[in-house]
Amino acid sequence: MSKIINNQGIGMFDSGFGGLTVMRQIVKALPYESILYFGDTANVPYGNKSKNIIVRRTVECTKYLVSKKIKLLVIACHSASVNALEIIKKKYSIPVVGITMSGHKDLLKNTKTNHVAVMGTRTTIRSNFYQNLLSKTNIKIHAVETPLLVPLIEEGLIDHPAMELILNGYLHKLNNEKIDTVLLGCTHYPLISHLISKKLKINIIDPSVSCAEEVRSILEKNGILNSSNDVKYNYYVTDDYEKFQRFGEHFLQQKINSIKEVIL
Amino acid sequence: MSKIINNQGIGMFDSGFGGLTVMRQIVKALPYESILYFGDTANVPYGNKSKNIIVRRTVECTKYLVSKKIKLLVIACHSASVNALEIIKKKYSIPVVGITMSGHKDLLKNTKTNHVAVMGTRTTIRSNFYQNLLSKTNIKIHAVETPLLVPLIEEGLIDHPAMELILNGYLHKLNNEKIDTVLLGCTHYPLISHLISKKLKINIIDPSVSCAEEVRSILEKNGILNSSNDVKYNYYVTDDYEKFQRFGEHFLQQKINSIKEVIL
Repeated sequence: MSKIINNQGIGMFDSGFGGLTVMRQIVKALPYESILYFGDTANVPYGNKSKNIIVRRTVECTKYLVSKKIKLLVIACHSASVNALEIIKKKYSIPVVGITMSGHKDLLKNTKTNHVAVMGTRTTIRSNFYQNLLSKTNIKIHAVETPLLVPLIEEGLIDHPAMELILNGYLHKLNNEKIDTVLLGCTHYPLISHLISKKLKINIIDPSVSCAEEVRSILEKNGILNSSNDVKYNYYVTDDYEKFQRFGEHFLQQKINSIKEVIL
Repeated sequence: MSKIINNQGIGMFDSGFGGLTVMRQIVKALPYESILYFGDTANVPYGNKSKNIIVRRTVECTKYLVSKKIKLLVIACHSASVNALEIIKKKYSIPVVGITMSGHKDLLKNTKTNHVAVMGTRTTIRSNFYQNLLSKTNIKIHAVETPLLVPLIEEGLIDHPAMELILNGYLHKLNNEKIDTVLLGCTHYPLISHLISKKLKINIIDPSVSCAEEVRSILEKNGILNSSNDVKYNYYVTDDYEKFQRFGEHFLQQKINSIKEVIL
């Protein structure tokens, strides 16, 4: 195990730029930490890919990220986290935090009716990850595949009537008085949480908030918070850095510079 | 140059299963030919990827396909054809036919107003391929990016009101009395040509029809039509053969068997 240096950055892996909503929360919780963000934009989206491919790509891209010397790794993409987190954890000695590690605790904490829901891509929902996590509790989980939300959000149609139609179709499945809490099981969905609130009186859990808290807590416990004043954000993508920058700034809500395209 | 055997199959390359609408036309024009179809399902969609990535993947996948001994190669994916066709043609001694090779001739033949249109993915439209092809003619071409049609078609929402809304938005840009002919610049679009007809009084060109004719003509000219009675269809995909089969049968309009998953 190589020595962990306090001033190394946090590594973040995502399938594209969606994970920047997670980075936003990490920046908010840990404004003095440097971040190295890797988006596998050549292979986005992961949400319609099989477990095999997702594992292969996650292993390949995180290997590159870890080679850059990071002190902690965040798997920000839900489809990658449900499919590859355990494999990645076994590979590295640094702490690894998955976006899917704490959301179920938020569900347990927030529900009063014991009926909760999760919305996600086809791959995430069909992995049965959340369903399995809650199977030994008295919580009933309603899992809904919402595959068209990502393309609609990426086309900027958040306020378009087609979004309303598609979203209504998906939320109709959650229109059950018993369900009082929903987990946003995809990094894009925080951008439309206001639309969900408008339709359903329901607690909305964005797991990137507790994911950022988890990261902060691990850095504190291990005494590896950044001790320098030097905070840098570096981005690595496998395709089209211009698109990453254009879309990404909207997701991160701040300027993006220092993007490097790598072939992997 | 290795000897071309009449009874070798036709190789077809596509980013996924969309190219099966092209295969359907080839099967119709050449019912006695065997086909080896390669779908790069691990990397679909190509329509939002950069030229670099598309070229790299097309080169890698067609290398595999050519190693299977084919007598002619079809690049069925528009995004691959506009970006990689010339590179692939230079690499191989067998004839190579791109889905984008003949559509502009159909436009020239069909238009009376000299105002035509092309609909396609972002990558296809931004390649300026058709715009450049027609730049030295007296034809004015209106190019429209229609990125949400593929996800909507793949989700089976052809008759959904959201499709109508999105399609209306795109077709609005073609609602110009002068435009009398539109080219479907993506293999998915033949599945919604009836919806386009309903909205616009316009000639619709599906380039897979002339592409199949081009293939037939080359086989005839070179005297390499299949002389045996043995007709086989083999499929190769880079991810999730079950999804390929499920979706693909709808696109091909016949049963799909003999699918092999390959890691590339």
